Amino acid sequence: MRIAIDAMGGDHAPDEIVAGALEAKDVLKSDDELILIGDEGIIKSCLVRLGASPDTFRIFHASEVIGMNESPVEALRHKPKSSIAIMARAASHRQVDAVLSAGNTGACVAGCQLRMRNLEGVQRPGIAIVLPTLGGPVTMCDVGANIACKPIHLYQYAVMASIYAEAMFGIQRPRVGLMNIGEEERKGTDLVKKTHALLLNDPKINFVGNLEGRDLFQGKCDVVICEGFLGNVVLKLTEGLVEMIFTAIRQELTTRSKLMALWFKSVMKSVFRKYDYHEYGGAMLLGVNGLSIICHGSSKARTIKNAIFACKKFADKHINEKIVERLSQMAMVDSNGQ
Amino acid sequence: MRIAIDAMGGDHAPDEIVAGALEAKDVLKSDDELILIGDEGIIKSCLVRLGASPDTFRIFHASEVIGMNESPVEALRHKPKSSIAIMARAASHRQVDAVLSAGNTGACVAGCQLRMRNLEGVQRPGIAIVLPTLGGPVTMCDVGANIACKPIHLYQYAVMASIYAEAMFGIQRPRVGLMNIGEEERKGTDLVKKTHALLLNDPKINFVGNLEGRDLFQGKCDVVICEGFLGNVVLKLTEGLVEMIFTAIRQELTTRSKLMALWFKSVMKSVFRKYDYHEYGGAMLLGVNGLSIICHGSSKARTIKNAIFACKKFADKHINEKIVERLSQMAMVDSNGQ
Repeated sequence: MRIAIDAMGGDHAPDEIVAGALEAKDVLKSDDELILIGDEGIIKSCLVRLGASPDTFRIFHASEVIGMNESPVEALRHKPKSSIAIMARAASHRQVDAVLSAGNTGACVAGCQLRMRNLEGVQRPGIAIVLPTLGGPVTMCDVGANIACKPIHLYQYAVMASIYAEAMFGIQRPRVGLMNIGEEERKGTDLVKKTHALLLNDPKINFVGNLEGRDLFQGKCDVVICEGFLGNVVLKLTEGLVEMIFTAIRQELTTRSKLMALWFKSVMKSVFRKYDYHEYGGAMLLGVNGLSIICHGSSKARTIKNAIFACKKFADKHINEKIVERLSQMAMVDSNGQ
Repeated sequence: MRIAIDAMGGDHAPDEIVAGALEAKDVLKSDDELILIGDEGIIKSCLVRLGASPDTFRIFHASEVIGMNESPVEALRHKPKSSIAIMARAASHRQVDAVLSAGNTGACVAGCQLRMRNLEGVQRPGIAIVLPTLGGPVTMCDVGANIACKPIHLYQYAVMASIYAEAMFGIQRPRVGLMNIGEEERKGTDLVKKTHALLLNDPKINFVGNLEGRDLFQGKCDVVICEGFLGNVVLKLTEGLVEMIFTAIRQELTTRSKLMALWFKSVMKSVFRKYDYHEYGGAMLLGVNGLSIICHGSSKARTIKNAIFACKKFADKHINEKIVERLSQMAMVDSNGQ
């Protein structure tokens, strides 16, 4: 399997990205190949700095970089030689089997959506992230690929994310919840009401009904479906709120006892380790014909390594093949009018 | 000022509700009156239980109660003698100046929207809640009154919530943010893009631009505008996430040292006190011709007392009058084609 890694993307690029690739390389099979994308000179000197040979990886040279805060579509248009643009093209030309970036999320998603085709039967790709909760990992889809969402898109997210959660986390018949403002069937917008009906109608989906925001972390389901605008706000809000709570606790502890604040740091570390989304590597762009994983901008070597292993697992478990098969069965049922 | 209180609504009704009314009564002026709505027998025996005279308050008898989990619209239709239905009618008939309930939120909002007219110029009422953040209180509107939102509704929420935040919290020219999935002007759905243009166009609104989920708790703005579906999910998610984080910390501490877990309880209490939404009493239904405050189902006496004082302040600061005046100015500008 050939996995291309955007060496220039992320807050800690290139060092942490390249270090992650080095760590993963030691574990991968001999028929797997990691390819780095970015400025050849910078990557080679980075490899040397990390104590490796400058020729450890094949490199696809990219003379431009898309900044973390650049407008995605503009940047893709004006920087065709950027690592993200070259990465997306490499995926579309089948020069690689998977692509991975911790760079500008919008540009990665837009680039991959633009260049890579959809899997057969998929109407719109969706970004699936994994939220660590008290009840185990919850897969949420979509968190921002598609903000003009139709019921059929949400329905397909449920299909894809169920297959993903079952294959990646070994959850049998994952329970699927639909994000809504109340548990009753008649609640919510037209979009969620129509999606509700579609989900109820498919016995292969283990649909447990509407889910309210507060239920998300209580282990009521394994998969949550929502449209991309909402998912994106929720994802970023979750990050911001966690940060605020820990800041508030730290401030309170510091006024009481500096020793306690120090001790609490180790408690916080344990909690973070237990509920650490870096474990899952990154967000998967489900529904594209290929494999695209988007890592958090703050990714360090361990995240990149985990993301590389997630790519391997995704391919080994034949997730894309299963999605195509499931959707083709649905299409057959539809065309038979059943 | 006559404030009607739904004595039957909330997880701790009627005792905590009546206790809150008793606490507030001691502080109110002699020309203020609190009226309790609910089963007369139950309320009177509750008053006696709390050591007060059964005739402390005027009571509007209500023989039915809408349960916390009943479908709002159904319940209102089938229980015309419920405390919430009677409360909404009392408001619409001007028998009282303000209404307050910790009962079924959906039923309260639906009842008030159904019975009370809108303020002149207001197209849709919106629910405003106050989120305690590291940067001070942030007013968020709408969190669920209106899930078929148009740009003009969001724009009016900005006007109303700005006036509210300035009057209630003394924030001069509150900074208004629009909840979106990116900071750039062109980001987001049609709804937010059109709202963005409306907000930019009104120099009286201190519009600071798009706001991402993670910015909400960082003190970047004083008012956040979003449509009701999103706001409702965000509000409940915030609750659920806070609960999960404290549970996770408690679990971690308990495995380490029971003594530490106990000690941490007092730290948690301090943090909760500092970021306690009960301080603000409840959520205000902005835009109705009258005054309606919806308290959290978990409200205790202190919350009810604070909500009563919030009603007083809302009236004293002439918030409704200011809203009508501001919107009539806008209408004049519009009709002059300026």
